[in-house]
Amino acid sequence: MQKVVIIGSGNVASHLAKRLDEVAHVCQIYSQNLDHAQAVAERMRDCQAIDDLNLIDTDADIYLISVTDSALPQIASALPDVRGIVAHTSGSVGISALKHKKSGVLYPLQTFSKGAELDMKRVPFFIEASDTETEQKLWNLAQMIAPETTPQIANSQQRKRLHIAAVFACNFANHLWAIADQLLSNDGYPLDVLYPLMEVTLKKAETMPPAKAQTGPAARGDQGIINQHLAMLESRPDLQEIYLTLTKHIQKK
Amino acid sequence: MQKVVIIGSGNVASHLAKRLDEVAHVCQIYSQNLDHAQAVAERMRDCQAIDDLNLIDTDADIYLISVTDSALPQIASALPDVRGIVAHTSGSVGISALKHKKSGVLYPLQTFSKGAELDMKRVPFFIEASDTETEQKLWNLAQMIAPETTPQIANSQQRKRLHIAAVFACNFANHLWAIADQLLSNDGYPLDVLYPLMEVTLKKAETMPPAKAQTGPAARGDQGIINQHLAMLESRPDLQEIYLTLTKHIQKK
Repeated sequence: MQKVVIIGSGNVASHLAKRLDEVAHVCQIYSQNLDHAQAVAERMRDCQAIDDLNLIDTDADIYLISVTDSALPQIASALPDVRGIVAHTSGSVGISALKHKKSGVLYPLQTFSKGAELDMKRVPFFIEASDTETEQKLWNLAQMIAPETTPQIANSQQRKRLHIAAVFACNFANHLWAIADQLLSNDGYPLDVLYPLMEVTLKKAETMPPAKAQTGPAARGDQGIINQHLAMLESRPDLQEIYLTLTKHIQKK
Repeated sequence: MQKVVIIGSGNVASHLAKRLDEVAHVCQIYSQNLDHAQAVAERMRDCQAIDDLNLIDTDADIYLISVTDSALPQIASALPDVRGIVAHTSGSVGISALKHKKSGVLYPLQTFSKGAELDMKRVPFFIEASDTETEQKLWNLAQMIAPETTPQIANSQQRKRLHIAAVFACNFANHLWAIADQLLSNDGYPLDVLYPLMEVTLKKAETMPPAKAQTGPAARGDQGIINQHLAMLESRPDLQEIYLTLTKHIQKK
């Protein structure tokens, strides 16, 4: 069984730790804050919480650095010389941030939230590595974590572009739902009234290319309704701007 | 069993007709184009296809006008005097477009596509009517069509605002997925790689207010990543504009 050290105790780190505990041996969890490391470690089978990188077990097979993008370079350079592979999990940080001989990236294309259950077996992982052997090992690890999907190879540029696509598909889509929620709340409706619509919209986007599934006033070119909507948003120039920007972009297609 | 006449043969009309055939008697379907009316009627139990409003059975209980917003006023005024309730299904047309004594609106907050199966039993309907008795009758009809949810009352202004919220939550969200699809295709990835992320994002927005579920560089205030993304979108000023507009709006919260 592979020995894994996890560096970080945030959302990604703790979801990864929980799943890795089922398919490998997570021997250590590091966090600057020992309490945070302990909170994750105590849910594992046999895992030591540490807050000092000098205490790291240098004989593990894989070291997963899962910290914020801005903390990553510093943590990576503070890591002692270790036997195994050093990999990070960030979408937007290049592999070059890691100076170790055997290094790589294991990027889970998913959004992680504290407390929210998540089926790690379905998370698509994107792999990059310093050499073919390391790539194969990281690919195998990703396949163990997520056996219900297939890990893919992506270099740092591709991974950054995947991250941008994810920002549009996840962060920005969620923000539109937040706007809808706010608009409905003015009339006392809960967002629940839109759930069936949101679910059908997603299901459709998974059945056909979303560009072909596009409906609504912009896609129909119904300028009368568009003008009516813009007029009704008069007190919210911020929402008018978003409405107009997206409508124009839909119509350009 | 109530007798219903359906005026229109588009996506909304044909989905409504199919479901109404299970809980009422759809005795006639009107379309300007007889072939279109027949295509819907022949899947019903006992339904006549017509292309002349003068042939309409004036003794039905309910007349549902489900045509494009722009055609609605003309169709409504061409409709002969009838015994039952005349109602339309549009989100953005006021009840005042109907001049009949007993009139109303039965607005399904859902997106309808040709050929796509849809569970009408879960569609939230919003009701408006000329009088309390008509309102009750339309509410009952909506409850029969969609027994798994509760119809609600909405006046014409509220219904127009519901429609705007739906444009953000459905049409615009779908467009963001179309953009993500396009961005991924440059690297040869199918949109499939984002499905788990899109599904988790939706599930989360249904578990907590989406404003609280917001993740990503904008919500984290990670200006370094935001600048990196904008730089990588340099060849696509249209996408830069959308990225910047939505990022600024997330950060204003």
